[in-house]
Amino acid sequence: MNRILLDHGEGGAATARLVHDVFLAAFGGDGIPEDATVLDEGIDGRIALTTDSFVVRPAFFPGGDIGKLAVCGTVNDLAVMGAVPRWLTAGFILEEGLDLDDLARIVASMATTARDAGVRVVAGDTKVVARGEADGVFINTSGVGVVPPGRRLSSGSCRPGDRVLVSGPVGDHGTAVMVAREGFGIEGDLRSDSQPLADLASALLAAAPGIRCMRDPTRGGLATTLFEIAQASGMTLTVRERDIPVRRPVQAACDLLGLGPLFVACEGRLIAVVSADQADAAFDAMKAHRRGQDGAIVGIVGDAPTSSGGRLLLQTCAGGLRPLTALEGAQLPRIC
Amino acid sequence: MNRILLDHGEGGAATARLVHDVFLAAFGGDGIPEDATVLDEGIDGRIALTTDSFVVRPAFFPGGDIGKLAVCGTVNDLAVMGAVPRWLTAGFILEEGLDLDDLARIVASMATTARDAGVRVVAGDTKVVARGEADGVFINTSGVGVVPPGRRLSSGSCRPGDRVLVSGPVGDHGTAVMVAREGFGIEGDLRSDSQPLADLASALLAAAPGIRCMRDPTRGGLATTLFEIAQASGMTLTVRERDIPVRRPVQAACDLLGLGPLFVACEGRLIAVVSADQADAAFDAMKAHRRGQDGAIVGIVGDAPTSSGGRLLLQTCAGGLRPLTALEGAQLPRIC
Repeated sequence: MNRILLDHGEGGAATARLVHDVFLAAFGGDGIPEDATVLDEGIDGRIALTTDSFVVRPAFFPGGDIGKLAVCGTVNDLAVMGAVPRWLTAGFILEEGLDLDDLARIVASMATTARDAGVRVVAGDTKVVARGEADGVFINTSGVGVVPPGRRLSSGSCRPGDRVLVSGPVGDHGTAVMVAREGFGIEGDLRSDSQPLADLASALLAAAPGIRCMRDPTRGGLATTLFEIAQASGMTLTVRERDIPVRRPVQAACDLLGLGPLFVACEGRLIAVVSADQADAAFDAMKAHRRGQDGAIVGIVGDAPTSSGGRLLLQTCAGGLRPLTALEGAQLPRIC
Repeated sequence: MNRILLDHGEGGAATARLVHDVFLAAFGGDGIPEDATVLDEGIDGRIALTTDSFVVRPAFFPGGDIGKLAVCGTVNDLAVMGAVPRWLTAGFILEEGLDLDDLARIVASMATTARDAGVRVVAGDTKVVARGEADGVFINTSGVGVVPPGRRLSSGSCRPGDRVLVSGPVGDHGTAVMVAREGFGIEGDLRSDSQPLADLASALLAAAPGIRCMRDPTRGGLATTLFEIAQASGMTLTVRERDIPVRRPVQAACDLLGLGPLFVACEGRLIAVVSADQADAAFDAMKAHRRGQDGAIVGIVGDAPTSSGGRLLLQTCAGGLRPLTALEGAQLPRIC
């Protein structure tokens, strides 16, 4: 079996062969080594920038792998800001001894997902550390998107009466990775929801240009992300537990593990806060899209609380009203 | 002593406090959590993109630290392509147990170096892995620069008669890190040359707009980078050993360690290949700049070799002519 050696990270001949055989083979490129990539495509709008490192364990799990995740995560961070994702960079930190076939599978998955998302991977870097100094493969992706003129989304812009939409069931990714890693004797159809959301975000914005903000509820889950939106806006967000879609096997796994599904990461869902008059249009566009057909309207923005700052309230199935805040404590390490 | 906990990577309240207390304190920012940063500044030219991950050990060494290196490395990759470096992203992978004061020092060093380089750190990400799953701190920086209209540098564009310039002594960074890590009983004034080069690159391009290409000779050193330029151009590059500046303690350390200084990484030097008629102007501008005052003209581009592909020749101090190729084998792991 071919394995990663320290040589592959030295910047010399072995690095050049790895770049040629694995990275250029998957991502394309002219192979001329330059220190940066200069892009000839024009920019009509403002630049959006984001970065994310991925350390998920195991690297392969039902519904995805670290490569798919690394592309989706960064593409989605751009898309929810109203940007059209255009270019990605990919930085790899590899542990000596990593199976080269596994690396090639991961890189092929990145390339496939990038095509699905309509982005190009245009720059990369590889470092290798000795056995025991990292765990398999860590990937950073950074992304550049273009926000069309006139479009401004912001977590701080929610107004009373706005509706809160989520594009599908929550908690699938985190529980799928957790169970793939630890087993726990849990069976059931647990799969990561990992998918690129640029086309869904674009469809929503076309149908409802008055969208206040979008976010993708990754680490910390739906509740943490909604709490951040409430805080940024200084508003009270109220969500109805009954309306939040949670798949049965996800709920069952969460019950067994003592997790709240509202705090478990998604990697293929988006939250949208939409003005009341455009909420139905946004919801219809969501339901009409293959990546949003299980979406729901889950909440509403109320008036600002009397004290300063915003808050998140959960109207429980039992009829109570419970305040939620950001995730506290290490619940699910290395799920992305 | 305060240390990094797994909680700090969970995306919840602990992550928010770390971001506020360490990252926003150093880099600035409004603190509103969004998934990407949208930049209001205009773009006049083409976008240049690059990425680099840094895993240097030890994290602190004479002349720099992993934070300074992470900014310089990415800024320099943009600058040598003729881009004005503008924005950086920073992705941190932290090992549980990392000293929070060390992290704060590293981040402060990044912020200082970013100011020196004229760039802003505008987006970030933090992941935490358990003890033993990484080694202290790994940093990815990705960078966006803007290439002014009409400027096109390319490693493939060298022509016969072009001169090869290097902006200062080579091999300082790699030997300084190696000796800081391993000791080897070596004494002497070994310091990393790590520094941002955007202003030097800009001064060179102003004085000599006909610069064919620039590169920064990091991993693999001067020889590997010149070999890549020779290959991309299909030309023969001949460099004179006598003219290549190597500081005495660097040469002494290399002799003891059995390393060739031409293959040892720099982190604050650039190579420029300049048309013959502008070589003197470029050289004068280099010598007049505080980051290039120890620079030299070290070689010349000859005709293409008869066989296909380019080659690099070293005219040795002894008078011989020796072909050099890219670095083979793991010489200096984790020096950047």
